[in-house]
Amino acid sequence: MTAVVGGSFDPFTIGHDDLVRRAVRLFGQVVVGVGINSAKDYLLTLDERVNLTRASLADLPSVRVELMPGLLADFCRQHGARTIVKGARSGSDFDVEVALAQMNASYDDLETVILPSRPAWGFISSTLVRQAARGGADISQYVPPAVANYWRQRPNPQPSSTVEQ
Amino acid sequence: MTAVVGGSFDPFTIGHDDLVRRAVRLFGQVVVGVGINSAKDYLLTLDERVNLTRASLADLPSVRVELMPGLLADFCRQHGARTIVKGARSGSDFDVEVALAQMNASYDDLETVILPSRPAWGFISSTLVRQAARGGADISQYVPPAVANYWRQRPNPQPSSTVEQ
Amino acid sequence: MTAVVGGSFDPFTIGHDDLVRRAVRLFGQVVVGVGINSAKDYLLTLDERVNLTRASLADLPSVRVELMPGLLADFCRQHGARTIVKGARSGSDFDVEVALAQMNASYDDLETVILPSRPAWGFISSTLVRQAARGGADISQYVPPAVANYWRQRPNPQPSSTVEQ
Amino acid sequence: MTAVVGGSFDPFTIGHDDLVRRAVRLFGQVVVGVGINSAKDYLLTLDERVNLTRASLADLPSVRVELMPGLLADFCRQHGARTIVKGARSGSDFDVEVALAQMNASYDDLETVILPSRPAWGFISSTLVRQAARGGADISQYVPPAVANYWRQRPNPQPSSTVEQ
Amino acid sequence: MTAVVGGSFDPFTIGHDDLVRRAVRLFGQVVVGVGINSAKDYLLTLDERVNLTRASLADLPSVRVELMPGLLADFCRQHGARTIVKGARSGSDFDVEVALAQMNASYDDLETVILPSRPAWGFISSTLVRQAARGGADISQYVPPAVANYWRQRPNPQPSSTVEQ
Amino acid sequence: MTAVVGGSFDPFTIGHDDLVRRAVRLFGQVVVGVGINSAKDYLLTLDERVNLTRASLADLPSVRVELMPGLLADFCRQHGARTIVKGARSGSDFDVEVALAQMNASYDDLETVILPSRPAWGFISSTLVRQAARGGADISQYVPPAVANYWRQRPNPQPSSTVEQ
Repeated sequence: MTAVVGGSFDPFTIGHDDLVRRAVRLFGQVVVGVGINSAKDYLLTLDERVNLTRASLADLPSVRVELMPGLLADFCRQHGARTIVKGARSGSDFDVEVALAQMNASYDDLETVILPSRPAWGFISSTLVRQAARGGADISQYVPPAVANYWRQRPNPQPSSTVEQ
Repeated sequence: MTAVVGGSFDPFTIGHDDLVRRAVRLFGQVVVGVGINSAKDYLLTLDERVNLTRASLADLPSVRVELMPGLLADFCRQHGARTIVKGARSGSDFDVEVALAQMNASYDDLETVILPSRPAWGFISSTLVRQAARGGADISQYVPPAVANYWRQRPNPQPSSTVEQ
Repeated sequence: MTAVVGGSFDPFTIGHDDLVRRAVRLFGQVVVGVGINSAKDYLLTLDERVNLTRASLADLPSVRVELMPGLLADFCRQHGARTIVKGARSGSDFDVEVALAQMNASYDDLETVILPSRPAWGFISSTLVRQAARGGADISQYVPPAVANYWRQRPNPQPSSTVEQ
Repeated sequence: MTAVVGGSFDPFTIGHDDLVRRAVRLFGQVVVGVGINSAKDYLLTLDERVNLTRASLADLPSVRVELMPGLLADFCRQHGARTIVKGARSGSDFDVEVALAQMNASYDDLETVILPSRPAWGFISSTLVRQAARGGADISQYVPPAVANYWRQRPNPQPSSTVEQ
Repeated sequence: MTAVVGGSFDPFTIGHDDLVRRAVRLFGQVVVGVGINSAKDYLLTLDERVNLTRASLADLPSVRVELMPGLLADFCRQHGARTIVKGARSGSDFDVEVALAQMNASYDDLETVILPSRPAWGFISSTLVRQAARGGADISQYVPPAVANYWRQRPNPQPSSTVEQ
Repeated sequence: MTAVVGGSFDPFTIGHDDLVRRAVRLFGQVVVGVGINSAKDYLLTLDERVNLTRASLADLPSVRVELMPGLLADFCRQHGARTIVKGARSGSDFDVEVALAQMNASYDDLETVILPSRPAWGFISSTLVRQAARGGADISQYVPPAVANYWRQRPNPQPSSTVEQ
């Protein structure tokens, strides 16, 4: 069975990494879709997001990382997948995911499977990692080595715009 | 009794439609306020939002659809209404609505009535419909016929900006 | 892959039925564990719960229904399953399930997969069906035909103890 | 329009009192149903619960307080009401109410209206008041005068069984 | 400052242990109140609960463990404490705690401080540990050594009553 | 002990005021950090936010109000604080705070203490006050006198951009 994991991966975190690896164990083949949302203020470029996600998952032959230019539901159809895998950390996360799941079920009879985040990194979201990175913090404990290394050596760092946490 | 249903209606969905019709059965007269939020990136123009909401509710003589240029509380006073009707899909929705309700109660002793969304379309939010529309999906199962027809024939479609779901 | 669906099934509802059928589509083999909790005030006997669950799923050759005398985690090990499938209706449900999932992961590295309830019967819980049944209501729209038929013809009906909803 | 407010009212609190008075302002006629749940360990007898609820609402000619021996849905039909009014304090409360609302809608097309608790007494639940009363605390700030007076002078006080809060 | 941590501690878990130690770091002196709730079906006797809690915290000279026969609020007054410390794992936990906090604030102007559970053992509740213990599972990873040792050697084990998880 | 309260304070509300005063009673010294988030569309300038927060807390000698140019965690280290104090109104709020708390604990072993909002002003958020202010409403019941006075006499009022509530 092929399952899809979609997201912005801005950046790809150890939480995402865990989610994809669990999806592989459950479903065999996984296609990871790296999305585009013109309204978002990204930390990383689309190329960076695709490449760092790919680099982080390079040891998994049954995972492909692809650009996802449109809707997740269309991406699933394109890749012959009927199953979407999502992570959720909290009841609030779940409330968001359930609406998306029901929308995708109504749209094209897609099944959504929600994996509760592991306790050890359930708190890690791209949003928080982005805030930490923009605030100049060391993010290496929250992202896979490929992302941590890249971020440390990145030539043109994002001008520091900070967010109180 | 006159009740008020406020929102952006960008676009007016079958969830909104159900909410207004239930409010009519409960309270008799309903004034629908179409709001303006300069910070929002709307799919539809204000005129479109007002006209499509009006068209969808045209069969209900006890419903008026009006522009709501400012606060919902002021709109209520202007229309002689003491009751606000809101829909909620989840505990997270409720948490948002209860703060608004208490604010409006403190501001002008307004009562807020929350109707739990019907299961069949509880997942439909304007946000999700907007994402689907921007992603090029057929949205006709999520909106009343007047909205679906208009969207299909719209002369200048929104440039495709997509959102991963 | 073999997945486990555990529960009291007091009674087995169309929500449970949907959950098991989705688990079969996702994982192939499913073992349904019918649990025992001496503290609970059951509507049905253990035999009735096992038999009605079995009857409802009789058309699915890849599903087995078994008595689960102890912990779900032990039941999984006994049946060679590493995956637990749970349904959740709301953020509150999810909050409960995530603690159980993390407990089972810590106990024996079991994976828990949460399927959001389908909108059409997301509100149906055994608790509510039990209340309706005890209040003398017709429950046939909430349970599979096998359960509905049995309940209608049950020789010694539960003495009416009612619960305000 | 006639609306129904159901509950155990064990005891009737100032939160219940507020809910019924708001329901009267919204719907005109209100029937309050005092439920029976044989499994519950009540603080007050059924007679006490009915009488104290009645006494607290005695100034409202458009409210009737009646025994509700079975399901709330059947009580509504019996009293010609199509609308149930519930209070909710939190997202968790809402998650419970939405399932009940959808059950009652499916059962007999009943409408459920949820009023968010007023901030000043949103935290008051019968459960907490019962715990306080059993722990020997003065509960008079949480219940209407009729209930407070009765509780103070009650001949055979509940033997003290305490609950850590 | 003296803070109070109350609970059933049936059994005292590593989650409780963490909570008390954090409370000591924050407030200096902590009194732990071991509550009695006649309605509860305890795994351990009151003596066992007090003794195992005391044994687990024996290395902390600024912590006292005392029997709490009545309300937490009365226990606070008795021990000259104005601050209650609670742990919470989820939004649902918080919803419960906030009502208790507001009740205790109204009752005797007590302050309640909520500490979010640490990710690594946020899922551990006495309820789940009790279920695991009753199901015959090894609970030593969820409780401090003093509790684990005692449980292993307990002379009259609880007759096995199991709970499906 | 020194505790930190961070935020945008756009504007400083009576909810913030209550939070800081409770933090002082619990921890003695409080440093309030006024944050900068370049992505936010502020109602007030940074200077206004700092000055009005300072003016509102001027009667508390053990409180300092400082600019917080980067991460809250770095601000804590800079001011020798190990404790962050946050308010939360609802389970959804808590879900957000718990992730931040765990991030800050992982980053620099910081402790986060969550105080449930007092019922009387738990609904007041800067977001709602901002909406009310932009909609031309009188906000004086939601903010300390210093803020209310300033807002009334502000020379260049924000051009009216309104948000439906």
